[in-house]
Amino acid sequence: MNIQAVMEAMGPDLKRVEDRLLEETALEYPLVSEILRGLVAAGGKRLRPLLVLLAARPFHYDVERLVPAAAGIELLHTASLIHDDSIDHAETRRGHPTLNTLFPTEIVIMVGDYMFARSAMLAASTMNPRVLAVFASCLGNICDGQLREIFAARRTDLSLEEYQRRIYGKTASLFAGSTEIGAILGEAADEQIDALRRYGGHLGMAFQIVDDVLDLRESAYHLGKPVGHDLRQGTLTLPTMLFLQQNLGNSGSRELVEQVLAGIADDAALGDAVLAIRQSGAIEQALEIARQYVERAQESLRILPAGEARDMLEAIAEHAIERHS
Amino acid sequence: MNIQAVMEAMGPDLKRVEDRLLEETALEYPLVSEILRGLVAAGGKRLRPLLVLLAARPFHYDVERLVPAAAGIELLHTASLIHDDSIDHAETRRGHPTLNTLFPTEIVIMVGDYMFARSAMLAASTMNPRVLAVFASCLGNICDGQLREIFAARRTDLSLEEYQRRIYGKTASLFAGSTEIGAILGEAADEQIDALRRYGGHLGMAFQIVDDVLDLRESAYHLGKPVGHDLRQGTLTLPTMLFLQQNLGNSGSRELVEQVLAGIADDAALGDAVLAIRQSGAIEQALEIARQYVERAQESLRILPAGEARDMLEAIAEHAIERHS
Repeated sequence: MNIQAVMEAMGPDLKRVEDRLLEETALEYPLVSEILRGLVAAGGKRLRPLLVLLAARPFHYDVERLVPAAAGIELLHTASLIHDDSIDHAETRRGHPTLNTLFPTEIVIMVGDYMFARSAMLAASTMNPRVLAVFASCLGNICDGQLREIFAARRTDLSLEEYQRRIYGKTASLFAGSTEIGAILGEAADEQIDALRRYGGHLGMAFQIVDDVLDLRESAYHLGKPVGHDLRQGTLTLPTMLFLQQNLGNSGSRELVEQVLAGIADDAALGDAVLAIRQSGAIEQALEIARQYVERAQESLRILPAGEARDMLEAIAEHAIERHS
Repeated sequence: MNIQAVMEAMGPDLKRVEDRLLEETALEYPLVSEILRGLVAAGGKRLRPLLVLLAARPFHYDVERLVPAAAGIELLHTASLIHDDSIDHAETRRGHPTLNTLFPTEIVIMVGDYMFARSAMLAASTMNPRVLAVFASCLGNICDGQLREIFAARRTDLSLEEYQRRIYGKTASLFAGSTEIGAILGEAADEQIDALRRYGGHLGMAFQIVDDVLDLRESAYHLGKPVGHDLRQGTLTLPTMLFLQQNLGNSGSRELVEQVLAGIADDAALGDAVLAIRQSGAIEQALEIARQYVERAQESLRILPAGEARDMLEAIAEHAIERHS
């Protein structure tokens, strides 16, 4: 099964999540509301809602309870993107101008907060305290990851462990939370809930590493943001970390990469730095690590009954790594 | 009974809330953590935690369940102050420098978000879905109030209804949520929960009106912020609204107030505008409206059994209005 087949099979239920999400953008401030609607509608793949749904599917699949939880998770993700883009001064997101290019910071902060509140209300509407606890700790982890990124900015000496903690918080935690919440609402047994949580966590790690690779590989056109954005922001990601710490490239190119990370180089230097990392083998090494996470994700699924839902979760894990090619 | 007696009687339980709050400031980033600890320790009166505790007291008073809920409410309040101060570029809060004078905006936004997450985790630890739903909707209301304030900035033609909606969101909603959550955890009957929610809401309205009056009356020393701060920010509050809309003062002073609100006047003009409002009778009118809210709060308490808890809630309502003198 491939990812298109998964999206097709889950289409009708994802459509319900989509409708629910659009309802949540109806603020009383027409201008903000319209922009938010554009942001939500532009959407992305709805991977997190898909994970919520699929994690319940081998068990008790009650779509009435799952839809608000899935919409809540996606809205939490959207809210955190709103604050992230404001922090990063990002100009586009999903091909649309970001809120922060259109409104003053105070409105962007409050709209993000408001979206957090709406997402929490959706999660609360499941009336399941365990779901709420997972949900709240996801938000905590996301902020923790973001704070780690801010405090580590322009540093070149981070450990692999510190990188893993950062991307776990920033990305993997919400993937883990999505599958955990789906499994809880599906009334799965505790060991199955744990396994699905691990699956989501490993998947999220792979997903973020591939994202970090794409930041160095893709053209601006495909990415919807400039190439080497992380490097320019001074964010050390896995390929760059491997490049520097394993003495790949030559000493001149390593110095160049360090200067770009330190924010003391121009755009031409950024292009050269990206090229040096691409040619060093660091990207292949990073992808190999992502591949290992995907394998661990697949292994976590073995506890589930064989069937369509497990096949779909496997296909999603495959997709995470195939996005790079 | 007066407010001091209330604080004394509830001292030991409030101390437990205090300890819990300080635990929550232990982030992994020592500098932020220390500043946050200062902010939380400086504290204020802990009125919201007090309301959570007292609303449960006539019923089933389980301090183990109430303390995390009370700490969660106070932390939600603290988180919203962090974002507010950042938006208002406020320099001091509770006599301490604000986070936004010490850290770049990105850290302030994320620390605020992180505090929202911690507060939600505390609320989630009650394992009561109804508490969580109230909690999430309080956050939504606070953002709504804040957005209303931002969008209405520098406007002089707001209706009383719009002002009420704004201060309900900004302040009264969390007071109402505090008493409602306390009553829910106390396992009160639905009509008692409703009555305590109404009490909290009316109390919060009175509280915010008195705050708006104090902004025009107190010296900078007592207030911990400059006099006429709202006016300077272009925020139309009740006394100023009454002054303008009832044609108090003379036409020259009304024009002056409008110029200050519009942001086209200097500091000397601000002082004159504050004085004109003070001398116009608008403050007394605003306090009369606050007094009516206090009376409605008191009336809401009649459904409760007579006793110490009800006396204490009455004393708090009295205090809300007496703060101005």
